[in-house]
Amino acid sequence: MREVAVIGIGITKFGELWNKNLRELFVEAALKAIKDAGVDHIDSMYVGCMTSGLFAQQEHLGALMADYLGQNPIPAVRVESACASGGYAFRLGFFEVASGASDIVLVGGVEKMHTGADATAALAAAADAEYESFIGATFPGLYAMMAVAYKEKYNIPDDVFRRQLAMVAVKNHENGSKNPNAQFRSKITVDTVINSTLVADPLRLFDCSPVTDGAAAVILCPVELAKKYTDTIIKISASGAATSTIQLAQRKDMVWLDVVENAAKAAYKMANVEPKDIDFAEVHDCFTIAEVCVIEALGFFNPGEGIKAAEEGKTALDGEIPVNTSGGLKSKGHPVGATGVAQIVELVEQLRGTAGERQVKNARRGLAQNMGGSGASCTVHILEVV
Amino acid sequence: MREVAVIGIGITKFGELWNKNLRELFVEAALKAIKDAGVDHIDSMYVGCMTSGLFAQQEHLGALMADYLGQNPIPAVRVESACASGGYAFRLGFFEVASGASDIVLVGGVEKMHTGADATAALAAAADAEYESFIGATFPGLYAMMAVAYKEKYNIPDDVFRRQLAMVAVKNHENGSKNPNAQFRSKITVDTVINSTLVADPLRLFDCSPVTDGAAAVILCPVELAKKYTDTIIKISASGAATSTIQLAQRKDMVWLDVVENAAKAAYKMANVEPKDIDFAEVHDCFTIAEVCVIEALGFFNPGEGIKAAEEGKTALDGEIPVNTSGGLKSKGHPVGATGVAQIVELVEQLRGTAGERQVKNARRGLAQNMGGSGASCTVHILEVV
Repeated sequence: MREVAVIGIGITKFGELWNKNLRELFVEAALKAIKDAGVDHIDSMYVGCMTSGLFAQQEHLGALMADYLGQNPIPAVRVESACASGGYAFRLGFFEVASGASDIVLVGGVEKMHTGADATAALAAAADAEYESFIGATFPGLYAMMAVAYKEKYNIPDDVFRRQLAMVAVKNHENGSKNPNAQFRSKITVDTVINSTLVADPLRLFDCSPVTDGAAAVILCPVELAKKYTDTIIKISASGAATSTIQLAQRKDMVWLDVVENAAKAAYKMANVEPKDIDFAEVHDCFTIAEVCVIEALGFFNPGEGIKAAEEGKTALDGEIPVNTSGGLKSKGHPVGATGVAQIVELVEQLRGTAGERQVKNARRGLAQNMGGSGASCTVHILEVV
Repeated sequence: MREVAVIGIGITKFGELWNKNLRELFVEAALKAIKDAGVDHIDSMYVGCMTSGLFAQQEHLGALMADYLGQNPIPAVRVESACASGGYAFRLGFFEVASGASDIVLVGGVEKMHTGADATAALAAAADAEYESFIGATFPGLYAMMAVAYKEKYNIPDDVFRRQLAMVAVKNHENGSKNPNAQFRSKITVDTVINSTLVADPLRLFDCSPVTDGAAAVILCPVELAKKYTDTIIKISASGAATSTIQLAQRKDMVWLDVVENAAKAAYKMANVEPKDIDFAEVHDCFTIAEVCVIEALGFFNPGEGIKAAEEGKTALDGEIPVNTSGGLKSKGHPVGATGVAQIVELVEQLRGTAGERQVKNARRGLAQNMGGSGASCTVHILEVV
């Protein structure tokens, strides 16, 4: 396999953007990435998107976006793995460059969720329609069950659990307040979370990532070629991916995300590193409990200890392992198909040292973990400065 | 790039299969392909599907199918490019093996179109929603406009055009009658077509491919490894892909499919062959006029001469260049996300010499052309016996 670098990044403001449609969001991010990379052409395109069919009656996003980006006749295709669509699009773009089939590949992710469609129903298409969604399960409900199971498994008192969980949101809003593209830039407190509307017990409004419009894009090329465009070579040192049962009820352990463990194992092996070698990480905090379970499955914390990480400051910007420096899905926003690519954008900002107020010191190797459904699919990428 | 072979194929019966759901169809085809290949494991999976979201409120097909196929925790992802989803899934699976990332990859395609959903509306999501579908355009309507434009461009009398177009359907039903998996196995005549219900002038019911449930799957591995599984090595000698404007109205020429020309050029270059070197082809005859335009853009016939090919017997099983030996989308059926993979299954059957009554003599090199929308995306693959 050829070594592959990320040489350009672009991202839109995330938020409730009624004045921008699906194609405009994608094109905005893609043009920024192309300009940032300084390339004069691209050979191929990938579009990560979960469910533009249900949100906007629009499929065929590869062709649509190549057209609106003025890139016909290059190949372009959409990749979907629910909320891990962006991470998977990145993985497949990586394979295309690694194989030698193409040199300069654009990978974008997009989701336009404010369209009038029922977002909760559209997102439920990431679950098992016949055995979960059709009988009423929604994602807040599924993750709420994971939260209850976690609390009971580790025998945590209600008030302690509630406070520790809230700290994940507090930490991510703190980071998001430093991110100009974040949907929510206000800092919050534990009380903000605990007093917010109950969504699915024990999860409250501020435990949940928002409904977001947005797009992100990156440009990939072989490391050899990257030297032509930049002095800071950021290499994709690993791509891991895995699946697990689509139904939460079928998992051996509801609070141990085997899908994350398996994708991470593959990535650590490929990069020849261990969890302790990672300087910072962007992880899939679609709900506060998700971040807790993910950082354990990634090997950053022992089982049952992820819940304390935010409260103890271990995942803060200046902690042992800064997690979701961008604000995460919680504060930056979660345009589902864009999220995996937006995580890569944040990794590159940090590795370039251009993350401004939220810059992690000595950031040389970052990890991005993107997840679909209640943990049925996952990608883990490791990027490092070479 | 590593050389890649197809070592296993599987396909379901195509048709109106109310007793089989989305996952059952996929798993049936995938199990057949695994058994046919004789592999004891797979490393990764691709699922081509256009719009299970609109048909079945189910996205996240990579994870769903890996689960129901008993293949967790391997990576699995869905690929979408409207009716070219299967062809694109095959292309990306090819890249994964070619890159060296995986050795044994399953590529499947599936569409469950009989679900109670409005198929014409769901398929319209392959067009430009905002500038075509929302103002009433449907695919029969778009291809009907291409048919009228073709007739006028080449100044063909109505009755001659009508008869020649009908001969495409007659030829494909003749082939489909020899295919046990075809949705429609009855032979038809020109009169059958001409007297069938008018759908969108000048296209009649028998000019249109049907609404179909079905799935197909193939197993890929490096050529080097293929020798362990089979004596007949069938190599993917080329993968070409392209895009064009998503709106038909934006094309420079409504009847010249530049997307097919560009994808084919890339494939011919990669395989180092010319159109005359192709022994037989499966092409995207979603409507009779589509086959006519496609065989011209592939370089098999000069512009304006594709319309005569079926009538003159040139594309028949024993013609110069047999086209749609499987019966094509018209007679075999068109489960949109499965079609591109089903075309590869037919190529392999022919190259193995196991196509039975529809076997092409001396079939050594075949081409598969799969298309999305009114010609906004396209893949062209060339397979040959080595």
